[in-house]
Amino acid sequence: MQGAIGIHHLGIAVPDLEAAAETYALLIGAVVDHGQDSEEMGTSALAIRTPEGPMIELVAPLGPDTPVGKFLDKRGPGMHHVAYEVADLAAECRRLVDAGVEMIDPEPRAGLFGMQVAFIHPEAVGGVLLELVQPGEV
Amino acid sequence: MQGAIGIHHLGIAVPDLEAAAETYALLIGAVVDHGQDSEEMGTSALAIRTPEGPMIELVAPLGPDTPVGKFLDKRGPGMHHVAYEVADLAAECRRLVDAGVEMIDPEPRAGLFGMQVAFIHPEAVGGVLLELVQPGEV
Repeated sequence: MQGAIGIHHLGIAVPDLEAAAETYALLIGAVVDHGQDSEEMGTSALAIRTPEGPMIELVAPLGPDTPVGKFLDKRGPGMHHVAYEVADLAAECRRLVDAGVEMIDPEPRAGLFGMQVAFIHPEAVGGVLLELVQPGEV
Repeated sequence: MQGAIGIHHLGIAVPDLEAAAETYALLIGAVVDHGQDSEEMGTSALAIRTPEGPMIELVAPLGPDTPVGKFLDKRGPGMHHVAYEVADLAAECRRLVDAGVEMIDPEPRAGLFGMQVAFIHPEAVGGVLLELVQPGEV
């Protein structure tokens, strides 16, 4: 199929993972699923979810001079990205590049949690940082 | 049950509904589901979706001096709110008010598309405007 299957997760930039997880537990009953640090991306991430998902990915910076650190400094905590699951990420990337869409990742790359990912530039998405994901390694 | 069932929709602030719908059709294959204007909220909304949902609610202002008009003026287009579906909105509102959570709507009110809704203040949600929804009239 062409296009996205549905929302895979919401990425939310937070200064403190544990405090944010407690907030979401109180507000919507979300529970911690799994976590992962990435030195390459400069992030510490915690995946939380409600019973019928999709997942919420809380993302904290490993330092101020990282993409999420700069995001927090500039915009404060809040929505960071929206990820949609696709069946064939390489094909979607080719389709979007051919359509002239401004891709941050014109080809799939390794993301968190063993997923293939490709980000689309917010300029192409009306101010939303959009991530396409395909579960499974590149 | 207590807490949210899952994500009901993402609210995205856009200056132009038709242009945004075309962008999402190209990027993720989303199709238009239904739309509604609300003079009370000062918005024109268009619900679009991918095959396995959840819904994306594109929200444009009916004028500059509306909440979404001011949002666009201040922050530009982008993520506006995240809505979670709950089974018993009145009970969730009571639970959150009792817990001292800063609610924009301490009680359910009528929202778009025949739903009951209550918004939680972004200050209580780490910078995210969070909406709880229960399908069905108040």
